[in-house]
Amino acid sequence: MKVKSNNNKGNSADNTAILLMHCPDKPGIVATITRFLSEWGGNILYLDQHVDQDHEVFFMRLEWDMDSFGITPRDFESHMETMAEKFDMTWRFYTSGRKPRMALFVSKQSHCLDDILARYTSGEWNVEIPVVISNHVALEDHVRKYGLEYKWFPKTADTREDQEKYELEILHKYDVNFVVLARYMQVLSPHFVGQYKNKVINIHHSFLPAFPGAKPYHHAFERGVKIIGASSHYVTNELDEGPIIDQDVARVTHRDSVNDMIRIGRDLEKIVLSRAIHAHLNRKLIVYKNKTVVFS
Amino acid sequence: MKVKSNNNKGNSADNTAILLMHCPDKPGIVATITRFLSEWGGNILYLDQHVDQDHEVFFMRLEWDMDSFGITPRDFESHMETMAEKFDMTWRFYTSGRKPRMALFVSKQSHCLDDILARYTSGEWNVEIPVVISNHVALEDHVRKYGLEYKWFPKTADTREDQEKYELEILHKYDVNFVVLARYMQVLSPHFVGQYKNKVINIHHSFLPAFPGAKPYHHAFERGVKIIGASSHYVTNELDEGPIIDQDVARVTHRDSVNDMIRIGRDLEKIVLSRAIHAHLNRKLIVYKNKTVVFS
Amino acid sequence: MKVKSNNNKGNSADNTAILLMHCPDKPGIVATITRFLSEWGGNILYLDQHVDQDHEVFFMRLEWDMDSFGITPRDFESHMETMAEKFDMTWRFYTSGRKPRMALFVSKQSHCLDDILARYTSGEWNVEIPVVISNHVALEDHVRKYGLEYKWFPKTADTREDQEKYELEILHKYDVNFVVLARYMQVLSPHFVGQYKNKVINIHHSFLPAFPGAKPYHHAFERGVKIIGASSHYVTNELDEGPIIDQDVARVTHRDSVNDMIRIGRDLEKIVLSRAIHAHLNRKLIVYKNKTVVFS
Amino acid sequence: MKVKSNNNKGNSADNTAILLMHCPDKPGIVATITRFLSEWGGNILYLDQHVDQDHEVFFMRLEWDMDSFGITPRDFESHMETMAEKFDMTWRFYTSGRKPRMALFVSKQSHCLDDILARYTSGEWNVEIPVVISNHVALEDHVRKYGLEYKWFPKTADTREDQEKYELEILHKYDVNFVVLARYMQVLSPHFVGQYKNKVINIHHSFLPAFPGAKPYHHAFERGVKIIGASSHYVTNELDEGPIIDQDVARVTHRDSVNDMIRIGRDLEKIVLSRAIHAHLNRKLIVYKNKTVVFS
Repeated sequence: MKVKSNNNKGNSADNTAILLMHCPDKPGIVATITRFLSEWGGNILYLDQHVDQDHEVFFMRLEWDMDSFGITPRDFESHMETMAEKFDMTWRFYTSGRKPRMALFVSKQSHCLDDILARYTSGEWNVEIPVVISNHVALEDHVRKYGLEYKWFPKTADTREDQEKYELEILHKYDVNFVVLARYMQVLSPHFVGQYKNKVINIHHSFLPAFPGAKPYHHAFERGVKIIGASSHYVTNELDEGPIIDQDVARVTHRDSVNDMIRIGRDLEKIVLSRAIHAHLNRKLIVYKNKTVVFS
Repeated sequence: MKVKSNNNKGNSADNTAILLMHCPDKPGIVATITRFLSEWGGNILYLDQHVDQDHEVFFMRLEWDMDSFGITPRDFESHMETMAEKFDMTWRFYTSGRKPRMALFVSKQSHCLDDILARYTSGEWNVEIPVVISNHVALEDHVRKYGLEYKWFPKTADTREDQEKYELEILHKYDVNFVVLARYMQVLSPHFVGQYKNKVINIHHSFLPAFPGAKPYHHAFERGVKIIGASSHYVTNELDEGPIIDQDVARVTHRDSVNDMIRIGRDLEKIVLSRAIHAHLNRKLIVYKNKTVVFS
Repeated sequence: MKVKSNNNKGNSADNTAILLMHCPDKPGIVATITRFLSEWGGNILYLDQHVDQDHEVFFMRLEWDMDSFGITPRDFESHMETMAEKFDMTWRFYTSGRKPRMALFVSKQSHCLDDILARYTSGEWNVEIPVVISNHVALEDHVRKYGLEYKWFPKTADTREDQEKYELEILHKYDVNFVVLARYMQVLSPHFVGQYKNKVINIHHSFLPAFPGAKPYHHAFERGVKIIGASSHYVTNELDEGPIIDQDVARVTHRDSVNDMIRIGRDLEKIVLSRAIHAHLNRKLIVYKNKTVVFS
Repeated sequence: MKVKSNNNKGNSADNTAILLMHCPDKPGIVATITRFLSEWGGNILYLDQHVDQDHEVFFMRLEWDMDSFGITPRDFESHMETMAEKFDMTWRFYTSGRKPRMALFVSKQSHCLDDILARYTSGEWNVEIPVVISNHVALEDHVRKYGLEYKWFPKTADTREDQEKYELEILHKYDVNFVVLARYMQVLSPHFVGQYKNKVINIHHSFLPAFPGAKPYHHAFERGVKIIGASSHYVTNELDEGPIIDQDVARVTHRDSVNDMIRIGRDLEKIVLSRAIHAHLNRKLIVYKNKTVVFS
């Protein structure tokens, strides 16, 4: 696993490939795959594996140098199909050449959006943002300052179906790979979620499963908790019940009003959401049984 | 507020008094009380106040030096009654002379008990532990090594009423001021709780209000949370719904099994429970509308 | 301390006044001042006090409603002078009418700047930013998008004196109250610091006093620490030795390269700096003997 | 990597083996070793690897089921010698049969000792404690209550050499594998440290590298830090400069006196030390260039 260049694990700008996989656990999986890579000259940069002992499932993330790799990505994929069949494997394969394309959904609050755009502008992330979609005009000028497309249209329970049709068209038109709900205050339909399974990241402003749904800071205040939190998760059809990607918390005291909690919480929300995006962008996440494996 | 001795705020060994009070908020409360103390030579060591803006309630904790205080505790109390009437005040008054008496309730797990006994033995806390009560014999030898009384009797839903009668007798006999449930696996009856209102401290092994009730670590594991927690609270008649005193959390990952969570959680539980006991012992807590004001 | 409006403690938009004071500790200070306010109809919204037992110093922050306050700010100040003489008091008095004016100093990195500008734009803070000053042109376009003034000029050890003269002129011209070094990579001269004593806030990218000076993440990596941090502090003439306002930390592991630490650290830096600015803006800070009292 | 029994990763009571190794990084290491284990029927329970990109070093921890492993530990070791030569590998091999033997060194403070003994007594750890050594008589009765040997003798700079000779004899006599300094207030000589290289775990009461040496809480108080910490590390000949195993921190405020910091710090110290012991016991640690790799 010799590495020539000085790339760091999160932001490899070089010619690398990533394999994410899981399958029923049995002996010899690591040996089989690493031998295969080794034989074709694929120097492993990073290997992380996990065994879910309860469900007897094996998970692995492999990242390797493609420079001296003796087969093309296409050939690798066809080899994988054979191996996958043998081990009953679910897998995804990514090469560093393709830059992921992320759409943002926003409403009126800007703190998560701002945090994302600051990272985008500074080049912290290897991502394209072809479009920002909203149910309000509020942030249009703000977004356009960054030279980004902004599409908005009012949305109610009644018009949701039509609007989502239009939103999905936009996502297809802009070739969007995944969606980030940056404090987007609308529930997505099962149809929409089904189109982007494990590809819609939401931020919820509580330490789930406490305080799902609306106004979590008000509920936290009423309950008198001493710690508030934020949780990023993939969106499923059950509100705030999707697989949790990351969470973080902050201490509060009896002195903190609901407004103080909201203010303190904004910082949690933006950091936790951005960490989830970072993990997703770096192909660190596998979803299994409504939980995430988060490779380090 | 001149202080001669080098006492620290938590462990004053000197001759001090503490007043905890709350009342409807109106102008002049601080001025009235501090002037009263000042006139009688009571040097304030510590004043902390809080106004609940929603409910318009004023809370205060005052600690002062009794050495040069010109009136007796008894006289002070009678003055307080007058002031309390004027301001519609609820108040408690403590002098440093009386050492609080704490009973421990335990079942089979020892980690919280051990943490408490270590602090007790080393003199960290200004407290007496006249008796340990259990529904199991398991920890008897362990407790008796410390020279403490251990009372135990099996307890089921059927026998709860009788046993609690006996437990309450013991508490009265030993002149117990407050009770700590150190991972005690039995629910107390409303009758018991009514006898020790805001005087029974429990530790629950989750970050409430997430995962109340039984087996919270199993539920946390199933939900795939990235953070687990523990919460100390005063016991009320609603299970795990009492006013929260303190909480703390620890990160977990997909690698952590339920048993890992239980292991990591034990350290949270014991520290959070002991912090709650410390706050209670130092008269830092006021309960209001099922929430705590925790003076610093 | 009746409060009619629903303002929260950090962002009172109403007509309030704040007194920050410290003096040698002696009996009767709280009583004297609160009685004075009470007599003139000043309803106390917030009182926090602290006694430094080692140095026998009393600190207090008082915030009260000016609506029914019977004397003008000017008259209050002249009364305070009398009281200050009696108690040998150091004090500052602020009314909510005046919006503080903050200048930002930046170099090439934008994450702290972006975090500040996002809060500024969204109206989170009650502050004006009349000017951004830099030793690089790099962030000029970025800053001007927000409609802010941007002044820059190259700066070396040789030219520092001249440039600082110019910087100070700008600060005076724009009537700047305090300065924030948002990852500004230049040391300020004692002359500059002397002009803005306890009014220049810096962010250092380590948990001080560990790793002062240049390249703290590299040193942290070399030392193999398991926790990295960031520290906001007032600038003094000793590099990274000024009074600490706030700190925060994040876990790292052996997997994290220097670049990972830098990435993780950026989030710490921006949040810790913004929390320090928030505390400064809300008049929560008193400096004494190179330490801060941070009122809650 | 099929696992039949329901063991969790930290406390496997079954028949398992652990290999810890590091070597210059080159292609094929994982493939070679995992193929070897696979061929002999060793089901991998756990594999964690890390590449230090700066120094081009490969680290791995492997844990596997010995039940169906086709060769004896002794034969495995001789195979390893061959592989080790080929890859220039440093390695250690452990089987679950042998229970590690830990000696505790204490002085007068009991909080770390108590935390360790509570875990020992409750069976949380798979360890023997054949002896406790001290430079004071203070904790003798306390330790003997647990049925443990307690050896003590006064120790000064002058007598250190002689006493250490005696201590080393005791360690050999009791077949001690590693030593824990549970707030032991004496510096060990290079001779002693050389005998137990990477086998003496200390707890230092600061977030190293801040505040090494004596009285760190006093220094933290003087510096006005807002966060205090504790650090566990392997002892080397440079005081408080050994490889850090774990660290943790707690917030403090201007209200906290030195004594408050000491009190809060005790909880950090005991938890951080016990976490380090847990990692050491579970063979999770490799030391390289004065840093630790801590496998998860």
